[in-house]
Amino acid sequence: MAEKTLIKHTVEPQHVDYTLRATLCAIGNFMLDAAGSDAHNRGFGIDVLLTQYGMTWVLSRMTIELDRRPAQYEELLLCTWVNENTRLISTRNFEVVDSEGVVIGRAVSQWCLLNVETRRVSDITAFEALWEGRLCDAPSPCEAPRKLLPVDYVSSRERRVAYSDIDFNCHVNTMRYISMMVDSMPIDVWREDRALRFDVHFLHECRADQLLRIGYAQCDGVSHFEVFNVDDAKAACRATIEWR
Amino acid sequence: MAEKTLIKHTVEPQHVDYTLRATLCAIGNFMLDAAGSDAHNRGFGIDVLLTQYGMTWVLSRMTIELDRRPAQYEELLLCTWVNENTRLISTRNFEVVDSEGVVIGRAVSQWCLLNVETRRVSDITAFEALWEGRLCDAPSPCEAPRKLLPVDYVSSRERRVAYSDIDFNCHVNTMRYISMMVDSMPIDVWREDRALRFDVHFLHECRADQLLRIGYAQCDGVSHFEVFNVDDAKAACRATIEWR
Repeated sequence: MAEKTLIKHTVEPQHVDYTLRATLCAIGNFMLDAAGSDAHNRGFGIDVLLTQYGMTWVLSRMTIELDRRPAQYEELLLCTWVNENTRLISTRNFEVVDSEGVVIGRAVSQWCLLNVETRRVSDITAFEALWEGRLCDAPSPCEAPRKLLPVDYVSSRERRVAYSDIDFNCHVNTMRYISMMVDSMPIDVWREDRALRFDVHFLHECRADQLLRIGYAQCDGVSHFEVFNVDDAKAACRATIEWR
Repeated sequence: MAEKTLIKHTVEPQHVDYTLRATLCAIGNFMLDAAGSDAHNRGFGIDVLLTQYGMTWVLSRMTIELDRRPAQYEELLLCTWVNENTRLISTRNFEVVDSEGVVIGRAVSQWCLLNVETRRVSDITAFEALWEGRLCDAPSPCEAPRKLLPVDYVSSRERRVAYSDIDFNCHVNTMRYISMMVDSMPIDVWREDRALRFDVHFLHECRADQLLRIGYAQCDGVSHFEVFNVDDAKAACRATIEWR
């Protein structure tokens, strides 16, 4: 069994918002970067998967719990480990630890293995040799991502996928979906540093120039979001923030 | 007289676009980060200016010339130096050097010193002691930023300043203006790696929740852009890209 991976981070000025605390997207980016580099170091990164098997990892669902958002110049330890690979889902976990050793954030992410040619998901357990002895026997630090059903979105705005939204693949960048959804809320919701649980579910990829409609609703202390792909007439992504 | 400052950079996946080359915004960010850290190291950064004099640096105009856009994982040397402080303008220069020692980019930026309380520009020469012996006797590496007049913008779209657009001050982030303007062009313009000269002129700050109109026109091999602040009825920023 493998050990957890630890990565040091400093909250830099480009990671904070007007409250001088790290944004949800910046913390999410720390996690996605850690996922990529840890998978690479353990020999099952997309470099190996793509060149040897024509496969890639695709983020399906993710939950991030934050007790507080770390302040500018705070030093953090990001801890990550994969603890379970089933046929359809690989589960990668995260903890954010502050300089006092207090765990201030937890996350669980669920990934699929995609065949880039057929664009269909592959059976993860068929590649056992790649992860044998590289999983970590430690439980997930919080409840797994919840299923997110559509709600009645009371406000929505449209926007076309632009150059700065897309990645090397011409698909909308993962964190950009989250940033689009978070931008639907009044800026003031971040003024007070509240504990939160964020759930996101990626359903359908969006490509350059497509028209998106971003829906938002607030209900019983939960903010609900959806990115709807108007051109493909499909929901692309749903998320919630439960304010604690 | 001072020496030029050299800063190493690697072009990481988050800096590239779908062509796997660094974006104009990523290169601009390398330069703004270098400006901040070099000013800090030489004792005239905003930390000293704000706490001791109630002043801050504000970017007024900038020119970036790129012979080519560096590829993902390329290693670069960013070179920066201030060569002139007049009453109203401090001129900071940049060169981007590739691993073969070839200069592939040049930039000239012009900064004002702003009194944060009165929001008026201050006489830079009145603070001579701060920069004495810290300027570098080397010419600017390209023609200074040009004056940019408004043109007839043939296409425009509106967008409200959102949470992810603003900095610690609740003003729109400098590079976000550039990204908004660049997003007006068809995504395909970046497919071929062409040499370019970019000029930008910041006229008026925009704040959270304000409505912006982004204009774009293409004329004789030059792309023209303007961010117009609808709520304040003022042009916020103009830019051009001359394709070479």
